[in-house]
Amino acid sequence: MATIKDVAKLAGVSASTASRALHDSSMISEATKERVRQAMAELDYSPNYSAQNLVNRQSNTIGIVLPVRESQESLGNNPFFMQIIQGISSVCSENNYMVSLASGRTDEELKKNIETLIRSGNIRRIIFLYSKKGDPVFQYVKKQKNIACVVVGEAYEKSAVGIQYVDNNNIQAGKDAADFLINKGYRKIIFASTDMDELVQAQRYQGYCQSLAEHSLEGKNLTLSRIDSQGNTQHLQALLAEHPGIQAFVACDDIMAIRLQRLFKEMGVSADDYAILGFNNSWVTEIASPALTSVDIFPYELGEKAAGQLLQTAKQDGRSAAVIIPHRIIERESTPKLEQ
Amino acid sequence: MATIKDVAKLAGVSASTASRALHDSSMISEATKERVRQAMAELDYSPNYSAQNLVNRQSNTIGIVLPVRESQESLGNNPFFMQIIQGISSVCSENNYMVSLASGRTDEELKKNIETLIRSGNIRRIIFLYSKKGDPVFQYVKKQKNIACVVVGEAYEKSAVGIQYVDNNNIQAGKDAADFLINKGYRKIIFASTDMDELVQAQRYQGYCQSLAEHSLEGKNLTLSRIDSQGNTQHLQALLAEHPGIQAFVACDDIMAIRLQRLFKEMGVSADDYAILGFNNSWVTEIASPALTSVDIFPYELGEKAAGQLLQTAKQDGRSAAVIIPHRIIERESTPKLEQ
Repeated sequence: MATIKDVAKLAGVSASTASRALHDSSMISEATKERVRQAMAELDYSPNYSAQNLVNRQSNTIGIVLPVRESQESLGNNPFFMQIIQGISSVCSENNYMVSLASGRTDEELKKNIETLIRSGNIRRIIFLYSKKGDPVFQYVKKQKNIACVVVGEAYEKSAVGIQYVDNNNIQAGKDAADFLINKGYRKIIFASTDMDELVQAQRYQGYCQSLAEHSLEGKNLTLSRIDSQGNTQHLQALLAEHPGIQAFVACDDIMAIRLQRLFKEMGVSADDYAILGFNNSWVTEIASPALTSVDIFPYELGEKAAGQLLQTAKQDGRSAAVIIPHRIIERESTPKLEQ
Repeated sequence: MATIKDVAKLAGVSASTASRALHDSSMISEATKERVRQAMAELDYSPNYSAQNLVNRQSNTIGIVLPVRESQESLGNNPFFMQIIQGISSVCSENNYMVSLASGRTDEELKKNIETLIRSGNIRRIIFLYSKKGDPVFQYVKKQKNIACVVVGEAYEKSAVGIQYVDNNNIQAGKDAADFLINKGYRKIIFASTDMDELVQAQRYQGYCQSLAEHSLEGKNLTLSRIDSQGNTQHLQALLAEHPGIQAFVACDDIMAIRLQRLFKEMGVSADDYAILGFNNSWVTEIASPALTSVDIFPYELGEKAAGQLLQTAKQDGRSAAVIIPHRIIERESTPKLEQ
């Protein structure tokens, strides 16, 4: 394994000059830097980041924070997370950065794991894959010094320094989803969610409400559990009984849309009786029956952009505005034009 | 943030004694170690692992290697990977270890990313989430010094030092799956795979072949692409035309089972015309139509066990036999008893 001395020798400079060139010091001419870079490439030199970490007090690693899930399965269930991680990874790979994961079954466990990343791993760049109101984990990270943080999700605190947001315009996406159904002829449209504290869901609901209000229609939210299928059936049946004439559902994501299809099936109701639209445009839309209309939010691009923002921060240390990744409705069978 | 000096002061020992106690030195009595441990807990002391990494030349991080996938989506599609990662994470969390990910769209990219983990991150403990014959990435890792490696998958090279295997008994699982269908009355049973170089699939196929041979039945493998749905339809149609009387499919995993259901639907064939059985018992089994019988292979436990083995290695540095996680067939609607 080549050392900085080997690099210096090949480049015909002193070890300290080579080291300065490596760290892009303004004391070194561009020509010398280029010579050192070429020698590094030729020798396949890789700086010892552990040593640099000690000096810089930060590591070339991005920490990714997954949302807390009680159940072992629910994260795996949502392809969104693996796709966004792959987007982050590809950018890290290009920049010789590493990716570390923090997850937990409780807020406490997740906080402890992030603490390990920050304190033991010297990780100073963190991406939150969720945005949740009053989240104690995020509050903890915000209090730490010298952390650059990108939140994939809605900015509920615009003012924080060192924190950037990468997101879809979820209000607009919710509005577009409801507009789409209204244009298809539906009037009694329900929003189905799991947790309104998750800002993605709250924002989509807000957009949905805007659309319905503009069309002088009444909106209603149905909250279902991610796990308890027994209670879910009762909630759905109660809703249908109390509000006769329901025609369509905007589901907070594809998983919820599939859950609705399954609940209808269990209740002996044809899935064709209700239009359903989801979000994420994940692969499950294709296996849904009927195939699911869904709003694509481009998670891979979200991940790429989040990592890109974070690595830019590392260089510029400036604050930039929230980055918005566009969305697009992908129409399938679950939202036919309503026959009048 | 507490330092080792603070810990030493509270424990009433010298800093060097506290440090030795922290590293479990045999020079220090158990009573003193206990006092130091209590002081550490009280002060919430966390050793600076970057400094330790430099000394130990290895970090308190487990590197997880994901299989190469050309498409951005296919990893996210398989809930198996996120579940196994969560199992690894939970054990790492308990042991104050961190988790890093290496992924790539090509072998070259993946190799480069692992190189960064080993050379720059000083990571010496690696878990491969797949086992693939002649894999250049695994060959690269094997050549590195002082790497402890756990492969989640079949051991195709039994002799390697420093490499352990955690797996299901996939031959037995394949045999059990075929036995199950045969006991239900099926005789013409096809195995559906994507890539026989992946040892999980090859082993399940081997077990399937054993079962069919024991019952004097003929086995046949159908290879379908993970992506190309047009070619898949043609392959499936050709198979059904060439081998009339096909009754059932053992799919290499749940995703493949769902793919078959979808292909049948596209071809206008009722999914009820063929029995289908998958592997992984992932959540998609429930939304499949009909609901899918599947072999549960307990990925969370696989992840827990893989991380456990690796951390044990770190202490014992001995070689232990492959660990086998039991499997279980979960029966649903897709494999009814065949009416004679």
